[in-house]
Amino acid sequence: MPATTETLTAERILAATEEVLRRHGPAKATVVDVARALGVSHGSVYRHFRTKAALREAVTKRWLDRTTEVLAAVAADTGLDPEDRVREWFATLFAAKRRKAGLDPELFATYTVLVGESGEVVNDHICDLTGQLTDIVRAGVASGAFTVDDPETTARALFQATGFFHDPGYAKEWERPGVQEEFEAVMDLLVKGLRG
Amino acid sequence: MPATTETLTAERILAATEEVLRRHGPAKATVVDVARALGVSHGSVYRHFRTKAALREAVTKRWLDRTTEVLAAVAADTGLDPEDRVREWFATLFAAKRRKAGLDPELFATYTVLVGESGEVVNDHICDLTGQLTDIVRAGVASGAFTVDDPETTARALFQATGFFHDPGYAKEWERPGVQEEFEAVMDLLVKGLRG
Repeated sequence: MPATTETLTAERILAATEEVLRRHGPAKATVVDVARALGVSHGSVYRHFRTKAALREAVTKRWLDRTTEVLAAVAADTGLDPEDRVREWFATLFAAKRRKAGLDPELFATYTVLVGESGEVVNDHICDLTGQLTDIVRAGVASGAFTVDDPETTARALFQATGFFHDPGYAKEWERPGVQEEFEAVMDLLVKGLRG
Repeated sequence: MPATTETLTAERILAATEEVLRRHGPAKATVVDVARALGVSHGSVYRHFRTKAALREAVTKRWLDRTTEVLAAVAADTGLDPEDRVREWFATLFAAKRRKAGLDPELFATYTVLVGESGEVVNDHICDLTGQLTDIVRAGVASGAFTVDDPETTARALFQATGFFHDPGYAKEWERPGVQEEFEAVMDLLVKGLRG
């Protein structure tokens, strides 16, 4: 069903943009393709997103935010003690990335290109994630489980030290046999480091 | 001075190959260019390296081995206690990579392409490096400084957890202000994890 001015929401445009990106790839996808997929003029799309760059940034943010939301639920799960929460948080991040890369490799490759273009969106995303981690580290310090001087610095260190298991540049490694054991070995070392 | 059959050593060919790669880039450099730079026929080059691929692999191995040698000296320095040796080993690795990337970014980019082609050479290199790390971890377990179940697994985890500071894919990050502090924060966490 073509969209009308009333039913054309930002979310509908973003969903159509993802579909167009999946079909045409990041180099060829245009705003006209998105408008055509929705049965509207490209002017209607521009009313929601003022430039093609803004549209690409918004769809990238939407993709990244899905992971942020799933992880926020783990970060807030006070039913787990802080050590288990750190482990579960990274296990959820790694599983989400592997699933995205494995189930739909073309879309994953597309978003990897978009992420490379969207410096600010990505920085915000990393700030959101390390912010969640900082909260978990602080909870561990408060409960006496962790010995850490500066939770924010430590959260960033945790995120950098696990890059092998969430940076899309390593996606090919995630299908290698033994990678889950390697993940566990890195987590064991980091959690021991948090205990201090 | 052009090389003669007597003076044409594998090392001279590899030095010339590096120079040709620096000038032409990895896509355009040919065996004929290398032979011309040495003033010999391309047949003379092929007598030392049977294929272009073999020559590229050998020059990549030479580049990687330079780092391996510097690190071997740190790994063997029993004047440092194991904790300081781990820190010094990674600081040396990070400094070597940053220096290579910063002083001659084109050659660094060239070798990054070659490294991507040379799966086996790179795997051997990583085995060499994690072997050195395993020796340091074992020494720490022997002295009672480290509490580690399996030194080999832990050495691999250390190497993966520090990828941000030695994987060429992150080279652009190494010039960012604050990256040295980030490196220290990761090392602090990992060394605490080794102590256990």
